[in-house]
Amino acid sequence: MGSYVPPLRDMQFIMHEMLDVESTLKTLPAYADIDADTINAVIEEAGKFASEVVFPLNQSGDQEGCHWHDGVVTTPKGFKEAYKQYVEAGWPSLSCDPAYGGQGLPISLNNALYEMLNSASIAWTMYPGLSHGAYDALHAHGTEELKNTYLPKLASGEWTGTMCLTEPHCGTDLGLLRTKAEPQANGSYAITGTKIFISSGEHDMAENIIHLVLARLPGAPSGTKGISLFVVPKFIPTSEGAIGERNPVSCGSLEHKMGIHSNSTCVINLDGALGWLVGEPNKGLQAMFVMMNAARLGVGMQGLGLTEISYQNARNYAKERLQMRSLSGAKAPEKEADPILVHPDVRRMLLTQRAYAEGARAFTYWIALEIDKELSHPDESVRQDAADLVALLTPIVKAFITDNAFECTNHGVQVYGGHGFIAEWGMEQYVRDARITQIYEGTNGVQALDLLGRKILSDMGAKLKKFGEIVRQFVEDNGVDPKMQEFVNPLGDIAVKVEKLTMEIGMKAMTNQDEVGAASVPYQRVVGHMVFSYFWARMAKIALNKQDQDDFYKAKLATARFYFAKLLPETAGYIRQARAGNASLAEMQDAWF
Amino acid sequence: MGSYVPPLRDMQFIMHEMLDVESTLKTLPAYADIDADTINAVIEEAGKFASEVVFPLNQSGDQEGCHWHDGVVTTPKGFKEAYKQYVEAGWPSLSCDPAYGGQGLPISLNNALYEMLNSASIAWTMYPGLSHGAYDALHAHGTEELKNTYLPKLASGEWTGTMCLTEPHCGTDLGLLRTKAEPQANGSYAITGTKIFISSGEHDMAENIIHLVLARLPGAPSGTKGISLFVVPKFIPTSEGAIGERNPVSCGSLEHKMGIHSNSTCVINLDGALGWLVGEPNKGLQAMFVMMNAARLGVGMQGLGLTEISYQNARNYAKERLQMRSLSGAKAPEKEADPILVHPDVRRMLLTQRAYAEGARAFTYWIALEIDKELSHPDESVRQDAADLVALLTPIVKAFITDNAFECTNHGVQVYGGHGFIAEWGMEQYVRDARITQIYEGTNGVQALDLLGRKILSDMGAKLKKFGEIVRQFVEDNGVDPKMQEFVNPLGDIAVKVEKLTMEIGMKAMTNQDEVGAASVPYQRVVGHMVFSYFWARMAKIALNKQDQDDFYKAKLATARFYFAKLLPETAGYIRQARAGNASLAEMQDAWF
Repeated sequence: MGSYVPPLRDMQFIMHEMLDVESTLKTLPAYADIDADTINAVIEEAGKFASEVVFPLNQSGDQEGCHWHDGVVTTPKGFKEAYKQYVEAGWPSLSCDPAYGGQGLPISLNNALYEMLNSASIAWTMYPGLSHGAYDALHAHGTEELKNTYLPKLASGEWTGTMCLTEPHCGTDLGLLRTKAEPQANGSYAITGTKIFISSGEHDMAENIIHLVLARLPGAPSGTKGISLFVVPKFIPTSEGAIGERNPVSCGSLEHKMGIHSNSTCVINLDGALGWLVGEPNKGLQAMFVMMNAARLGVGMQGLGLTEISYQNARNYAKERLQMRSLSGAKAPEKEADPILVHPDVRRMLLTQRAYAEGARAFTYWIALEIDKELSHPDESVRQDAADLVALLTPIVKAFITDNAFECTNHGVQVYGGHGFIAEWGMEQYVRDARITQIYEGTNGVQALDLLGRKILSDMGAKLKKFGEIVRQFVEDNGVDPKMQEFVNPLGDIAVKVEKLTMEIGMKAMTNQDEVGAASVPYQRVVGHMVFSYFWARMAKIALNKQDQDDFYKAKLATARFYFAKLLPETAGYIRQARAGNASLAEMQDAWF
Repeated sequence: MGSYVPPLRDMQFIMHEMLDVESTLKTLPAYADIDADTINAVIEEAGKFASEVVFPLNQSGDQEGCHWHDGVVTTPKGFKEAYKQYVEAGWPSLSCDPAYGGQGLPISLNNALYEMLNSASIAWTMYPGLSHGAYDALHAHGTEELKNTYLPKLASGEWTGTMCLTEPHCGTDLGLLRTKAEPQANGSYAITGTKIFISSGEHDMAENIIHLVLARLPGAPSGTKGISLFVVPKFIPTSEGAIGERNPVSCGSLEHKMGIHSNSTCVINLDGALGWLVGEPNKGLQAMFVMMNAARLGVGMQGLGLTEISYQNARNYAKERLQMRSLSGAKAPEKEADPILVHPDVRRMLLTQRAYAEGARAFTYWIALEIDKELSHPDESVRQDAADLVALLTPIVKAFITDNAFECTNHGVQVYGGHGFIAEWGMEQYVRDARITQIYEGTNGVQALDLLGRKILSDMGAKLKKFGEIVRQFVEDNGVDPKMQEFVNPLGDIAVKVEKLTMEIGMKAMTNQDEVGAASVPYQRVVGHMVFSYFWARMAKIALNKQDQDDFYKAKLATARFYFAKLLPETAGYIRQARAGNASLAEMQDAWF
């Protein structure tokens, strides 16, 4: 079943040597007293929990799956006990608001925790993971009464949360949703409808489940402007905060899926279930976006976690498996064959995994710190800049990292050869688990449209320019260093190409909006590489200066060079595809398909 | 569970309008009397069998899987009965030698049958499919006695065959194999060892199973030069050709796999099982290559079959599923939303599937006809040319088409959104089934090395030049037609790029053989696109001339334009990756991984 070793050294490299998280946190009053030692102690402890408690459940959970009996859902053996330990250790409350029972640590730390939990098991991690979205939406939009009722229980992990958006006839297009909310005399609402694909929608791990449900009030406008958000608890809390009456919100069945078998994906039936309005009537979608953005970043972290675990195991296998001789001469003549690590194409696959994992780690840890700034910096303009960067790059975190994760988990299978296809070895599960990350919380096609249409073209590239300015500054600061040219030149080059490509598409879109959808997916890959080029150049700079200290830096530098030599060049194809536009998509008439 | 409609119109377009199969067959004495009507009648009947008998078993077979009990393997419900019908209808003998009970029809026809069977179910189709390899190896290398004993039963389908190569410690590297063959007094051999990953290794569909087994004679040289091939029947045939004594060759267990659940992947234990030598001692690997080349082409046909079935269902779904409005204005204002087919990125995914399916069909049907020429043409130089082209392009059939199939079956899932991840809809099974096609019969990485190292560089590009000459001739013949320039120009361009890239890598390989492995996978993608560009240009030429006749040709032309606008450009990235060479793979020392 393989193994997992938390990549603490690289996490510390990124948090301390690249980002200097400690210094940024000192500018945020809420976190001013958090030092590097605290950060290291937390991530070490989190790594132990992920590798020792969660990881051993991942494969058995996949094989067993969840059980449904008459509306009661049982999670695989060991899941409940691991969750109990998780709650007892206080992990759910790590980054929650101290006003409601949280520990008040930064998102940056929670993010590192989630990378490791996701490497250990994305299906298990989704049970606590969904609670964060529910917590954030209630925290941002709930009344004080709702906050006092729900936030401490969600923070402690005693209760878990869900997001109930999708219905059988609508996923992406939430404007079509039909679930109804009828006002009751006591100020609550009776909610009726069917929701599908509800992750962690019903289970045996927590004593209560708090559903955040989108529904329509009577007479609400059609489309997305008539959707409201409600909190619908499985058990209605008593005034003392204990478990009360069972609400008629129930799990009709579980889906059988390609992957994440051990997470319960539920059909949720609401039969006049009592709910309470969160935020303003008909503004539910805005409130829900708080959850969705957090969820999208969370999905990116799933992609990173899966890439890392697949890399670690493929690398271990490649060092042990003896097969064929190196074409350039035997490397282990004393053995009956060379370890497959000697073959250039095996190295290519492993380095692809490694470069995408480390690139994603640098990028997402930086984003997490930007979120901390967005939420907590005393200066409004700093908060706004951070908010813009986070908004711009959320679709890249979600789509670019998960597309890479799917590629990389497949490399993991390929390195194992035939054994990769066999369940016992554990590598094919990572592929099946990774596949959903490209779909849920907005498909990667929707992310690409969000990036190009909403985040970039709709403000004439203003947010993109903010990131472009960061890149430009780095190029200017480091372009004078001859040793940095191998990294700075391709970074500057891809930044210029992004700028030109964006303008081209923007011009074409003025005459035909379909040009946006025709270019968006390859465009997103190009922007993703600009972002990764930037972080790889930053990492390379540090590694160049410290390469004589230890092999960690030599490996970092080698991986950076691999990234620029072998991965960034795929943009040459994507730019051509994006530029090819809509004509060849439109020529084919619907009836001809 | 979706649907399958045999793509008879496109198959006929390729066989008659593009390839003019009838005229080529007239030059082959064995097939001179086969006309277009016969071809059409056979493929129509085959299409009925595939869609009506085999397709309905695919999803239930995946869910049920195979059962092992004390060495006895039971296939999923309905599999045995469908195979009985298959045998009764005479399909196994279609392209077998009339001297041993075959119908003597060309490989071209058998190939078309297999495309459709593979769309219907690759896991079911592997039971009869593996028999062809065993049949071919015995036909080419067996004694007359072995042929008379086994070929008629394999041709009729009463018995099925397997290939027993892999052992736990050796897959790609067959030189390491340890299974032993001890000579017996009666001229047979007692064979002892363990084989793994034996597809269709044990089952309940046929009364006997004929294993072709690689093993070592006493004192045989080590490595690949000491391997011999043996035929090892499950039941030893009596002199009358009936089922005789049970041979100690048995199934120790079944593997649990990512996909092809309903094909039995067996651990096969040989405990002094009796076997008979096929071909010369220590020359087993050459004999086995007959099977392996056929099997590699067969795997390419699995890729095509899966691409087609995924396309058909994704297209049907995209026409029915209503979600969001077209960015360029509502296309179905009378409905609550537009069908998702209107969205450019959905069209991109569907057209990718379609262009890769139709391109693969044109290419593989052409290859099948080349094989017919290689085997049956009276002129030796024609046979040699055909053999060279088939040898050159076998790794492209195997690797390029299956890599495309994996991409395309994933597009099929993505078009369905969340529903694509749910087993019930059937789309995720195609991904899981497609994944093995990139691994077995030589991983796609091994195919790429075979293409660049063995097929191209080792004869200084002589075979590549033969295909290049075909392309050059087409460019010359059609470059004068202004309407053809949009296809001929990029075809000529990619051919020139392949030539240059090949020379570059060849030069670098003279100093370091690892340059071959460092470039081989992206190089293979580039050559694959040259091949597909050629066939798309040929199809476009016909469609240009007939576009006013019916929409079939308009759709063909639109798909050709899509191919050149959106798929061929990925070569820009691959060329850069291939050219980047080995340096960034070698810099990373083994210990740093």
